[in-house]
Amino acid sequence: MNTTTVAAFGTHAPDLALENIQIPRREVQADDIAIEILYCGVCHSDLHFAKNDWGFTTYPVVSGHEIVGKVTAVGNAVTKYHVGDTVAVGCLVDSCRSYSSCAQDLEQYCLNGFTGTYGGVDKFLGGTTHGGYSQSIVVDQHFVLRVPNGLDLAGVAPLLCAGITTWSPLRHWNVGPNSKVAVVGLGGLGHMAIKLAKGLGADVTLFSRSADKEADAKQLGADRIIISTDPEAMAAAAGTFDFILDTVPYAHDLNPYVQALAVSGSLVVVGYLGALEDQLNTMPMVFSRKTVAGSLIGGIAETQELLDFCGEHNIVSDVEVIKMQEINQAYERMLKSDVRYRFVIDMASLK
Amino acid sequence: MNTTTVAAFGTHAPDLALENIQIPRREVQADDIAIEILYCGVCHSDLHFAKNDWGFTTYPVVSGHEIVGKVTAVGNAVTKYHVGDTVAVGCLVDSCRSYSSCAQDLEQYCLNGFTGTYGGVDKFLGGTTHGGYSQSIVVDQHFVLRVPNGLDLAGVAPLLCAGITTWSPLRHWNVGPNSKVAVVGLGGLGHMAIKLAKGLGADVTLFSRSADKEADAKQLGADRIIISTDPEAMAAAAGTFDFILDTVPYAHDLNPYVQALAVSGSLVVVGYLGALEDQLNTMPMVFSRKTVAGSLIGGIAETQELLDFCGEHNIVSDVEVIKMQEINQAYERMLKSDVRYRFVIDMASLK
Repeated sequence: MNTTTVAAFGTHAPDLALENIQIPRREVQADDIAIEILYCGVCHSDLHFAKNDWGFTTYPVVSGHEIVGKVTAVGNAVTKYHVGDTVAVGCLVDSCRSYSSCAQDLEQYCLNGFTGTYGGVDKFLGGTTHGGYSQSIVVDQHFVLRVPNGLDLAGVAPLLCAGITTWSPLRHWNVGPNSKVAVVGLGGLGHMAIKLAKGLGADVTLFSRSADKEADAKQLGADRIIISTDPEAMAAAAGTFDFILDTVPYAHDLNPYVQALAVSGSLVVVGYLGALEDQLNTMPMVFSRKTVAGSLIGGIAETQELLDFCGEHNIVSDVEVIKMQEINQAYERMLKSDVRYRFVIDMASLK
Repeated sequence: MNTTTVAAFGTHAPDLALENIQIPRREVQADDIAIEILYCGVCHSDLHFAKNDWGFTTYPVVSGHEIVGKVTAVGNAVTKYHVGDTVAVGCLVDSCRSYSSCAQDLEQYCLNGFTGTYGGVDKFLGGTTHGGYSQSIVVDQHFVLRVPNGLDLAGVAPLLCAGITTWSPLRHWNVGPNSKVAVVGLGGLGHMAIKLAKGLGADVTLFSRSADKEADAKQLGADRIIISTDPEAMAAAAGTFDFILDTVPYAHDLNPYVQALAVSGSLVVVGYLGALEDQLNTMPMVFSRKTVAGSLIGGIAETQELLDFCGEHNIVSDVEVIKMQEINQAYERMLKSDVRYRFVIDMASLK
């Protein structure tokens, strides 16, 4: 298959800094969209993947799955988009499109494994897929989203991962104007969760370990903050929330948040993957029909729904725009949670 | 308040056997139903309570919350029942009837704490309520259920706890003809779960540690059994079930059952109250939007729905009928799981 070589930023080993590399992009197939990338958000997964924290990275790595760009070419079977359209690509660029999950617009739970925007198996070129830290990308139209007019495009980029990761559970668990919602943790995911839950009309509380998050939380739309290290405040919150979205990315005790759920309430973990070192206690779950669940990004239709919702409600991520060449310093700052609330790369800097 | 003294079977201390005791029953109030008890099922909670296993027992204890009987008198405001009706009483005899849970027919999650049929705070006489190991009981009509015609009354008794404890989650999590259901553990709860899930039209699998449960499981309606100690069988079951009801009454590892859930599936614990000593892993929960939840008995309307469903589908519990005087030996056998599948006391033996 013919390819074009394009500029990108990536790394060849876990201990090396990211630098300029060249990657191939396939020529546009019948259902493909070629996209010039304008902005790419910087997700914690990008860093985990570059450093092989999960043990399954194949090098070289070109991360990035919060992509906003302009259509530069379309395949001859493409009907959804035209050259010049503003579009977006998130965490998925393909799935089996056959079995139950895909048939239900749940491509993120594809039973054969979805194709990640980076680090996935490239069905066209072999090797692994390369993500948005690059000049351009070629993606099947089914996995390309339409960006509504009028939004700040740098702020749109994080909607494709941080946004949909919080939107999907808010919608699946029916959060709406009568919901009492709490968000645990104020980072990239948490700040989107507050904005989106508020956009859905819910009453929104932030659980945080530090009182210095209060002003930010309220500015983002939270109605109040509860300091999770304050036993009295936590005791007072018992039985309160219909839905708690837990965005904390490390092992932590879920029991205090289960305690804060109302009867039939749900605590949904989106940030931490692994064993719960603090033993989860079933007693409050049984006595009040409480739920602990997980959720992963979102499907394509749901991501389009999110973008449309953000267009209607003028919601974007709070971002700090950086140049591609600043990515290594940005990773250092991310490790210290020193970002409000998402780095987004201005891809013009790569030219 | 005037009372009548009636014969019962109870105990005055954790280490004493159950024996004949006398207890007071209040005179019938405006909304009350007086019931001659015909049968009372024997629940594990009865034994835990008598032995003060949970540390909050007040003595003397008269256990029993799977009660079937005949109406012998009604208060002057009673409209639901007449003398001679066959009725039932389950785990609750009162609740606050004011706040959200009660307003939603979820009296079992009463925010002020429901009044247990035994061991609860007796609002009329002071002290604690006394349950069904007795000649008669007086209960507010709201908490009295109608028993449909044509069912074996001894087999009906366990529906009031073992039955509703499994029915409520089956209904809440929308189990129906297209559901793939698994039940973990074949005891009093498990055998009802199989019958009821099958009655709802689901495909039903039993997870059991022992292959010798297979014939029983299939006779109860299970389509198949999976031996939970067989790693190959468990691996083959990965991703299969929409709903798993876990009836095991002791701490055990939930992760293998989470693994067996399909995308968006729910594992509901009804048997074990306490900390999960085996660390629950969130990774499969996040990657397939899986849920772990708990559920407690059921509300009054839901219990009536269950009884009506059992009347239509001719479902009762498999029981071994004993005399009241055999209760101490029955407790010994229960501790060895030596019962298929529920002891029920024939209360005529108390006369």
